[in-house]
Amino acid sequence: MEPAIKYRLIKTEKDTGARLGELITPHGTFPTPMFMPVGTQATVKSLAPEELDQMGAGVILANTYHLWLQPGEDLVKEAGGLHKFMNWQKPILTDSGGFQVFSLAENRNITEEGVHFRNPANGDKLFLSPEKAMQIENDLGPDIMMSLDECPPFFESYDYIKHSVERTSRWAERGLKAHANPDWQGLFGIVQGAGYEDLRRQSAQDLVSMDFPGYSIGGLSVGESKAEMNRVLEFTTPMLPTTKPRYLMGVGSPDSLIDGVIRGIDMFDCVLPTRIARRGTCMTSHGRLTVKNAQFARDFNPIDDNCDCYTCRNYSRAYIRHLFKADESFGLRLTSYHNLYFLLHLMGDVRQAIMDDRLLDFKEQFFEAYGYNVPNPKNF
Amino acid sequence: MEPAIKYRLIKTEKDTGARLGELITPHGTFPTPMFMPVGTQATVKSLAPEELDQMGAGVILANTYHLWLQPGEDLVKEAGGLHKFMNWQKPILTDSGGFQVFSLAENRNITEEGVHFRNPANGDKLFLSPEKAMQIENDLGPDIMMSLDECPPFFESYDYIKHSVERTSRWAERGLKAHANPDWQGLFGIVQGAGYEDLRRQSAQDLVSMDFPGYSIGGLSVGESKAEMNRVLEFTTPMLPTTKPRYLMGVGSPDSLIDGVIRGIDMFDCVLPTRIARRGTCMTSHGRLTVKNAQFARDFNPIDDNCDCYTCRNYSRAYIRHLFKADESFGLRLTSYHNLYFLLHLMGDVRQAIMDDRLLDFKEQFFEAYGYNVPNPKNF
Repeated sequence: MEPAIKYRLIKTEKDTGARLGELITPHGTFPTPMFMPVGTQATVKSLAPEELDQMGAGVILANTYHLWLQPGEDLVKEAGGLHKFMNWQKPILTDSGGFQVFSLAENRNITEEGVHFRNPANGDKLFLSPEKAMQIENDLGPDIMMSLDECPPFFESYDYIKHSVERTSRWAERGLKAHANPDWQGLFGIVQGAGYEDLRRQSAQDLVSMDFPGYSIGGLSVGESKAEMNRVLEFTTPMLPTTKPRYLMGVGSPDSLIDGVIRGIDMFDCVLPTRIARRGTCMTSHGRLTVKNAQFARDFNPIDDNCDCYTCRNYSRAYIRHLFKADESFGLRLTSYHNLYFLLHLMGDVRQAIMDDRLLDFKEQFFEAYGYNVPNPKNF
Repeated sequence: MEPAIKYRLIKTEKDTGARLGELITPHGTFPTPMFMPVGTQATVKSLAPEELDQMGAGVILANTYHLWLQPGEDLVKEAGGLHKFMNWQKPILTDSGGFQVFSLAENRNITEEGVHFRNPANGDKLFLSPEKAMQIENDLGPDIMMSLDECPPFFESYDYIKHSVERTSRWAERGLKAHANPDWQGLFGIVQGAGYEDLRRQSAQDLVSMDFPGYSIGGLSVGESKAEMNRVLEFTTPMLPTTKPRYLMGVGSPDSLIDGVIRGIDMFDCVLPTRIARRGTCMTSHGRLTVKNAQFARDFNPIDDNCDCYTCRNYSRAYIRHLFKADESFGLRLTSYHNLYFLLHLMGDVRQAIMDDRLLDFKEQFFEAYGYNVPNPKNF
């Protein structure tokens, strides 16, 4: 059987681990490295699918946990699947729900079988297992699905993490068996292991032996330092086959995207750009700008003078600040559009830099303009 | 001096007072009868200007009171005026702020000079006079402006309303004198008089003698019955010159629009379509539908099977209900789009019906489909 999704490696940069490629899915092909906007509840907050398409989003993410609880995966299936339900005809990726169960759910009890917890909204008892995650994701119908993994805190003991990694491998195996639609949905395994190199290796080897069409790196961006995350990526991505895509989960700050790409990551997702946008904070070519601030009350420049997005072409900081002050939702729609455009175009620039073998120079220039502290940018 | 705005009467329907025409303004021409979406704070809540254009909005309204208090008319002027500030290049109409001062402000004190009140947001003392309203509207820079009027309750005594009408005429005269930009902003007078025919006549005569380029009818849709409103319109519109546009303020239910057109009204505005949309209620060819209701949880039909708007072409009732349940703002964006499209297209149908001399038949069919009770639709 042909795998549902295929990765095509176009080139690996000379001086770094950065890869230029593309991911071919049943709903189309997107270039990598790619940032994936998050549409938790089958909508990228405040934006229309056409706007995401227009700004260059090649794939979006939806959250299994949220859609399972509301409106229910059975309803989404009855609607004809997520693509039809939410009017997005390009690729969709869903997570497994595991991260939310570990971070949001109440009265959580983890067993070998799965996770028992209560729905925080109504107190209902619920159970998420590797098989249940597959059934939900099969019903939701994304192009790319995630295995259920255990998501331990980063700073746990070696023994705790080892036990957790082994369980995650057993859960991955169970998920793979339960996956009903391998012909049109690609399932990724998730490499865990916190900051322990040999546990990351064990996790990677376990999963690679199961031959997933892609691999996620989980358990990062959960409180550890950026240096720590980079250190883990440096030894983890070489453990993964070059023929498969690598997805770093939950990472979305510009520096982490660039540093992840340098270390061989192909896909990223994060709520950061839309979450800070809703508070009036924008990413710009000169660093972060909180457009709500009083200093922008009479500033008739665009959010970013180097940006040609819909927001920057048509609206001033003063107008957007007014919308936030007046509690008008069009304000956060404009900042959300801008921030996603910013990250999607940053990734476009990153792809071009890989093509030109100048990603480290690009990083140095970008970091300096953005205001990141980079004493030795080439020592990545 | 050429007036800033000109009305062109194309035809008056044979059997009714309905008029087909167009209003020519510095920012373009729109056909009448027209419904004007309300963008209170320089934004039609949740929607982009391009969407309003796409759905056929020929003109939008903004509220002087709100923009005066936030961000301030001086800031809007500095931004280059409302059109540039909010990225809407078609006509804009502003009210005078009077209605809001009478309905929202605290510690209101009406004198011959103007209205003293406190800003409910911060307690600041403020003063709105006919001259101040002109200065604010001149600074905001809309194509069409309103005179400051006194907005009395509908069911007041004859003496109270007579006194109020006379003051409104004096204020209209003062506003006309204070208006700084008659070459590029058209100022309307507002006919008051509640339900008293002779006071409406006195008000109309006073204002018509001042030769405004358009006339508004105020003090309706404030608690009186629809029959009462229709009765007042029947005797009021004939008091106004056929060569000038007539604007019925604050009216937006489908039946009132049609009944207003039949009585010779050319322009309407109302927050109704967007306000009910934000609560999940839609206007459809079969009447109102509250898409939030449980009965639509698994209904994969569009909001209105006779509608070809963006919302109805792409999304199901089930999806939109999910968005409301999940508190996702894209839901009210979709219902707001639909409701405005519905009213704008209703007015398009009304214009065609006038052209074809069949507005009463159109009314009968529409009212029956919408579920209005129409025992004798021809007895308008």
